[in-house]
Amino acid sequence: MLKRILTFSLFVMLVSLQSQAQDKTIQLIDPVTGADNPVRIACELRRSYRSFTEGEIRQDHLATLVWMACGENRPDEHKRTVPSARNAQEIELYVFTKDGVYKYIPGKHLLNLVTPGDHRAKISQQEFFAQAPIALVLVANYDKMKDFDAASRDFYAAVDCGYVSQNIYMFCAASDLYGTVACGAINRDAISTLLKIKNGKVMLAHPVGHVQH
Amino acid sequence: MLKRILTFSLFVMLVSLQSQAQDKTIQLIDPVTGADNPVRIACELRRSYRSFTEGEIRQDHLATLVWMACGENRPDEHKRTVPSARNAQEIELYVFTKDGVYKYIPGKHLLNLVTPGDHRAKISQQEFFAQAPIALVLVANYDKMKDFDAASRDFYAAVDCGYVSQNIYMFCAASDLYGTVACGAINRDAISTLLKIKNGKVMLAHPVGHVQH
Repeated sequence: MLKRILTFSLFVMLVSLQSQAQDKTIQLIDPVTGADNPVRIACELRRSYRSFTEGEIRQDHLATLVWMACGENRPDEHKRTVPSARNAQEIELYVFTKDGVYKYIPGKHLLNLVTPGDHRAKISQQEFFAQAPIALVLVANYDKMKDFDAASRDFYAAVDCGYVSQNIYMFCAASDLYGTVACGAINRDAISTLLKIKNGKVMLAHPVGHVQH
Repeated sequence: MLKRILTFSLFVMLVSLQSQAQDKTIQLIDPVTGADNPVRIACELRRSYRSFTEGEIRQDHLATLVWMACGENRPDEHKRTVPSARNAQEIELYVFTKDGVYKYIPGKHLLNLVTPGDHRAKISQQEFFAQAPIALVLVANYDKMKDFDAASRDFYAAVDCGYVSQNIYMFCAASDLYGTVACGAINRDAISTLLKIKNGKVMLAHPVGHVQH
């Protein structure tokens, strides 16, 4: 009898864990919609927006946005839409939503839950972070830059952050819906604690939302 | 008689100066051609090229390339295709060709001769710099960042350099002709001397040329 109870309990635990694991992951669709404007036209429209109107970001557009930011465009080689110094691929992308904070996993094109809850307002004192439906936070993972000296690491991590940030701008400039602004005045310590960053730097954050053109 | 000779000499001098000034300046056409691929498709094609085939860059494409890199897209406000921290606009663009080294002037959308001659091979030990018809050199002008502390200046200058560099990649990825690679292994001191940089940093260089897809 005890054996049956233990077996049943183990079964319940496993089912529960599996269900929890499924909830913690959002598989994104392939990036086949959004950002349709020609590159030259997107450069005409590129600007910073600091005010957002209501409305969620479409899930298919979110998939294209995070993929453009640092997704894989040559999956066989694990190479990306943005370059990085010595292919370190150290810039990692976190998506803050009303429901939780997710980490983008480029190799699987999915979002993994880091922590549940609405943490958008913690990013910065700037009000637009609570206003926009999502915020993207760019973190340099120094574990991936162990063969750089400190000065080179700081220099290239910042350059590589610029690549990702520009593609976020270009996603918005290539749509007729969204706007963004790169923000360096952010609560780096609080974000670092929330994301449990051990060896890295919180670099920039981008609110992304609907805008009036 | 003496007055006439002096007047004539002055006239010749003025014509000569004006002619010299014209030779030293290349007015670029408006950026209305090139980079036609949609942004999402350009992100699929974005990659680094380290080998170039023969052929010059079309002058209209060069005009679009330098404009995308750091040109003005809102001339009334002197705002640009790429953001910069506190709108410092500190990243300056130099174009190395077979004929000379030019500085791009965003507000006038023209190239000013810095020094004549072919200096491409001085940029780096990498052979592709002599192979590609042009190279773009990105310099952070610290005179434009006097209100940043040293750490912030270094951080944001590097991020801002990434914005410009990504747009150079995007120009190439949005064409069916050109390729590029961002190169940090460059002769910073030699370039700095050549360009007479007094208070700034030579950040990155990009060869840009025709490639086989």
